[in-house]
Amino acid sequence: MLEPVKIGLFGLGTVGCGVVNVLQRNTNELTRRAGRKIQISHASVRNINKSRLCNTQGIVLTEKPMDLVNNPDIDIVVELIGGTTRAFELVMKAIKQGKHVVTANKALIALHGNEIFAAAQAMGVNVAFEAAVAGGIPIIKAIREGLSGNKINWLAGIINGTSNFILTEMQQKGRSFADVLAEAQKLGYAEADPTFDIQGIDAAHKLTILASIAFGIPLQFNRVYTEGITQIHADDVQYAEKFGYKIKHLGIAKQSNQGVELRVHPALIPERCLIANVNGVMNAILVHGDAVGATLYYGAGAGSNPTASAVVSDLLDVVRTLTVDPENRVPHLAFQPNAISALPILSLAEIETAYYLRLRAIDEPGVLAKVATILSQGGISIEAIYQHEPKTGQKDVDIVLLTHKVKEKQLDKALNALEALPDVVGDVTRIRLETLDA
Amino acid sequence: MLEPVKIGLFGLGTVGCGVVNVLQRNTNELTRRAGRKIQISHASVRNINKSRLCNTQGIVLTEKPMDLVNNPDIDIVVELIGGTTRAFELVMKAIKQGKHVVTANKALIALHGNEIFAAAQAMGVNVAFEAAVAGGIPIIKAIREGLSGNKINWLAGIINGTSNFILTEMQQKGRSFADVLAEAQKLGYAEADPTFDIQGIDAAHKLTILASIAFGIPLQFNRVYTEGITQIHADDVQYAEKFGYKIKHLGIAKQSNQGVELRVHPALIPERCLIANVNGVMNAILVHGDAVGATLYYGAGAGSNPTASAVVSDLLDVVRTLTVDPENRVPHLAFQPNAISALPILSLAEIETAYYLRLRAIDEPGVLAKVATILSQGGISIEAIYQHEPKTGQKDVDIVLLTHKVKEKQLDKALNALEALPDVVGDVTRIRLETLDA
Repeated sequence: MLEPVKIGLFGLGTVGCGVVNVLQRNTNELTRRAGRKIQISHASVRNINKSRLCNTQGIVLTEKPMDLVNNPDIDIVVELIGGTTRAFELVMKAIKQGKHVVTANKALIALHGNEIFAAAQAMGVNVAFEAAVAGGIPIIKAIREGLSGNKINWLAGIINGTSNFILTEMQQKGRSFADVLAEAQKLGYAEADPTFDIQGIDAAHKLTILASIAFGIPLQFNRVYTEGITQIHADDVQYAEKFGYKIKHLGIAKQSNQGVELRVHPALIPERCLIANVNGVMNAILVHGDAVGATLYYGAGAGSNPTASAVVSDLLDVVRTLTVDPENRVPHLAFQPNAISALPILSLAEIETAYYLRLRAIDEPGVLAKVATILSQGGISIEAIYQHEPKTGQKDVDIVLLTHKVKEKQLDKALNALEALPDVVGDVTRIRLETLDA
Repeated sequence: MLEPVKIGLFGLGTVGCGVVNVLQRNTNELTRRAGRKIQISHASVRNINKSRLCNTQGIVLTEKPMDLVNNPDIDIVVELIGGTTRAFELVMKAIKQGKHVVTANKALIALHGNEIFAAAQAMGVNVAFEAAVAGGIPIIKAIREGLSGNKINWLAGIINGTSNFILTEMQQKGRSFADVLAEAQKLGYAEADPTFDIQGIDAAHKLTILASIAFGIPLQFNRVYTEGITQIHADDVQYAEKFGYKIKHLGIAKQSNQGVELRVHPALIPERCLIANVNGVMNAILVHGDAVGATLYYGAGAGSNPTASAVVSDLLDVVRTLTVDPENRVPHLAFQPNAISALPILSLAEIETAYYLRLRAIDEPGVLAKVATILSQGGISIEAIYQHEPKTGQKDVDIVLLTHKVKEKQLDKALNALEALPDVVGDVTRIRLETLDA
């Protein structure tokens, strides 16, 4: 049998210890798969004396990550420290030392991936990042390799567990956003600073990566339209259900002749869709290819063990490619570096989708007619309309509408006109509606 | 750029033409991925003069498949003729000529895979078979590579579209098995001879393959317990729903210290599970790994385009490994050939599961007590019980029970005792119940 492959780990926190645990627990199974032993020989930590969630016997601990970078015995480094400054520096240095890299760091890949992959290609090393998107779901592999025969038309994913947990609770129990967020923080599903999750930034990192490998475009995080779930009202969740929809926070990427759509926002989706029934902290990604049609991938999107599943599976992949000539590996972004497409990213104004609208209006005859007239003048067809009885003690009514597909810029114009109506109170709520059917 | 890779196709039927169409339609996309052109240079057909579902311009057609095997310019052959006699012969001959093979033939792999893979290993060639299981869903890749960091505990799949279509119609419309089968045949979902589908044989072929790559055991089709859906009564589907379950036809493989379970049969599953909501001809496989937990893969399990998706994706994989030393490729059965496990396959008598039982009894006081006593004496706990009012004009009642988990041999004994009761009319219906939760 070949000699063991030596791995250096940056970071021994929750995920790092998950990786150590999985490698120890499944060592026999993994050796049967790889044909050689995979051994964590070194790990860098912030404080060498801290107690850990894993058994570090046999692992040399150091507080100097550069020790790993400079160690010629280490073939592969695993970056699990997070953040984009120190992690970027270490990954680039490791690549320059000819080391392969496995990372779970979505922000790192979304923001610096183009540079990292170029450096890796120049050095003939591999950078694997399955764990960066949707935790244990092998979605990178599915899109990049499993569906490689297809032209990917679009994908739509529930790729932030915290947001999905909050929306699920709001839907199933009629609770408010703030109430559920507080609980999610108590349960550890949401960070003390939940901004990245609830503002959609985490999902935008992941969508950036998925879109690149689906369409063969450069990573363009700053071109993703990003909207979180903080404005979703319990009423919207309930009204959506009346129409047969659920509200989910989605990352959507679509390719057409006009260009690419990259957007992260809440959306109504038909409740008969499988993905509408993905609840709690679970993740799922719907991928539509021209040959395969719609496929769905579901599983745990975060957590020590699921993330370790992806990291260790990546390790096996990288170990197998150690002897492959770099030109014949699966390209980092699925397409050959010289064949990355320059398809333009469409601005939000240009995207076309259906909408859910909720507006509060004075309870008077004729309001509905005025609303319908404005929409019609804007070229917007109404699919359904619902007027709620005034709630006890209120003189305003909720008018809820579903529109047919229309360009966002056309809708913007109509909403301005609606909000200018004296009968309409406050802003109009607008949530996009995706049928996910073609 | 490297020279085009030349492909020989055995068979230009529905799937063969699907492959030709996808390669032609996506040629630009595929070249961007692979870094070289993939070109079907030859195809063997039964009748060269027949009209086809694809444009064969530029493809040399022959009625002699051995022309492809003996052509030194062809690097990879794709076997799409089906069956296990001629296909086996051709695949073995192609391997002996040093050609790589892609096949969509589940029966071939399930019955002759061990021999085929041994020959391929000896010749250093690759045999890819993603299309053999669940059509376009990249489930082979997900299990063999995407989850390779895990010990796979179990998997359960809806892997026969015809059976799922029939059960879905029975459930949603209260129709009978025979009625829906006739429609499925008319729609082309079921073959003229539907035996392989409705008797579970097709699913057993696929389960054989999935179990091997999940656990690293040899292909053992003849050890799969196989039961189809022909005995499912419309009443069972309705009763199951009363208890919150749906009846699905599943392929189940489980690994424990005692051995491996390989079984294909209808099962009640909780309707809150995502997989219980996979309807019509769609396929889905639930895979549980020790690190990742439960993951689900969903998509079209058959059809020209979805199958072509898997075949073409396999072609790209094989093209990439053309220059890899064979020892470092992903092993055919996920584990190194010398590390295939000899875990025993458990007999059905030894498996432990919960059960749905339906028996018809004379409508008299005390029957329920007698039934409960027999089950209790057999060490079987009852989870729920339901007694249906006699239907109009009938003097017998349906008694429906759900049991807790018990060994199949214990249940067999109790059923014999139940059927011996003078109050019980005819045979007791037994359907296994799987909670799919750990």
